[in-house]
Amino acid sequence: MRFISFKHQDRSAYGIVHGKGIFDLRARFGEILPDLKMYLQASALNLVAPLPTGTAADYWMDEVTCEPVIPSPRKILCVGLNYDEHRRETGRPKSDHPSLFTRFADTLVGHRGEIQRPRVSTSLDYEGELAVVIGRPAYRVPPQRALDAVAGYTCFNDATLRDWQRHTNQFTPGKNFTATGGLGPELVTRDEIEHFEDLKIETRLNGGVVQSARLGEMIFPVADIIAYITAFTSLSPGDVIAMGTPGGVGFKREPPLFMKAGDIVEVVIESVGHLINPITDERREE
Amino acid sequence: MRFISFKHQDRSAYGIVHGKGIFDLRARFGEILPDLKMYLQASALNLVAPLPTGTAADYWMDEVTCEPVIPSPRKILCVGLNYDEHRRETGRPKSDHPSLFTRFADTLVGHRGEIQRPRVSTSLDYEGELAVVIGRPAYRVPPQRALDAVAGYTCFNDATLRDWQRHTNQFTPGKNFTATGGLGPELVTRDEIEHFEDLKIETRLNGGVVQSARLGEMIFPVADIIAYITAFTSLSPGDVIAMGTPGGVGFKREPPLFMKAGDIVEVVIESVGHLINPITDERREE
Repeated sequence: MRFISFKHQDRSAYGIVHGKGIFDLRARFGEILPDLKMYLQASALNLVAPLPTGTAADYWMDEVTCEPVIPSPRKILCVGLNYDEHRRETGRPKSDHPSLFTRFADTLVGHRGEIQRPRVSTSLDYEGELAVVIGRPAYRVPPQRALDAVAGYTCFNDATLRDWQRHTNQFTPGKNFTATGGLGPELVTRDEIEHFEDLKIETRLNGGVVQSARLGEMIFPVADIIAYITAFTSLSPGDVIAMGTPGGVGFKREPPLFMKAGDIVEVVIESVGHLINPITDERREE
Repeated sequence: MRFISFKHQDRSAYGIVHGKGIFDLRARFGEILPDLKMYLQASALNLVAPLPTGTAADYWMDEVTCEPVIPSPRKILCVGLNYDEHRRETGRPKSDHPSLFTRFADTLVGHRGEIQRPRVSTSLDYEGELAVVIGRPAYRVPPQRALDAVAGYTCFNDATLRDWQRHTNQFTPGKNFTATGGLGPELVTRDEIEHFEDLKIETRLNGGVVQSARLGEMIFPVADIIAYITAFTSLSPGDVIAMGTPGGVGFKREPPLFMKAGDIVEVVIESVGHLINPITDERREE
């Protein structure tokens, strides 16, 4: 199943994608379950009945504006340095533990939403990533049971202001500029994913491939990351874990390759999705 | 004015403290403003009328259980290394920028709430801090206007699992164990604070003073921190900024001094408050 959060004529909603059509779940359940996060919570409680089959689409995909697939996750955790090629290009040592930082929900934009380059920095870099969306509450979960907590997967662009990331050893500022994290287009449920390890993840800037890897190259797999995170904090339906980016980031190129207004950045993961974001200069609306 | 979030007979509420009495605001405004965060938002919109003077207290302080003074801030940002004595004891270099990490809201406990030492670590350390509570929306604010965004101040204990903090160079895990951050007891509005720079901040463990400094010793003052943060992210009423801890933390002592079940830790800031938290072993309720 594929879920989407979207706006249709300025009304926020969520639904199920069938081909090019969208079945609007908010129109059915919105009084009780106003967003996809609440729908996932209800599903985890077995509150959600099977949907009628063969229902006609309410909208076509090209009639709606995508929102971040989870518009306001309670927790967003991001793994750093989870592909060895990227770890080596940044010159950081191997570690027995995953590196984790966080994002605020207002850093997110949806598929085709504008990633904004702020006025204070020109070092806006791409980071194509797999994102995990949590479907069941999880706390102190061993790796062998951790995938039960996963609702599914989507694409993430962990776009980063490199100078602000490196103001100190904590990454928080460079990872938390408003409207810098593309998330979507769709939440693809775990049962739809086969041969996870072989799936290709690719980042493209203006059509050219700038990052390319297989999901099996991740140093810490999804189950281990969930076990590690839930050792210290609880996860809930709708929480998001960004799994880290492969080698090839812009700031380690010679000369460095940064994103600027007019660029188009894409994150493509086989079976999972194709996330497209245009880059703009920050809006002058203060 | 002094605000408090509390439970009375299992009902969550918030109010104004007058001496030893509490005037219950939720009983008056709860249908529209269910918590102190919403009350601050309404105040920022000039929606809140002056309160009647001379009203009798609804409860006495000793009848209620304190909650974190803001029970679920949308954003909690924490400054690292903001006192030079602490920077030197950790061996970290001087920086032109503040070091920032984040906490999730479920790490918070209120005044007299139990700080829990998890099973996976024995290196639970205290960090007494001033916390700033935001009262007005703030984005791209210069330092000279930044204090206008401050509702007031409270005490914070940024208790940390030192081994998990140092698993990698990102502090996230060691700072985000459930029920490790004491926040309270009261939000003291900014107009009540005089001679800010001279105010003493002290941390006591089992009655003994383990940290002692003046607020004027902070490397980056409150206004500069707000200006820096709002360069990349927006702040809203109820958001919390923890301003960093002075020298004297437990893990840099010889031998190291960590907290364990039965200990009592206190953060005392002149004119601001006196936060007390007992330490317990994590509850076995999984």
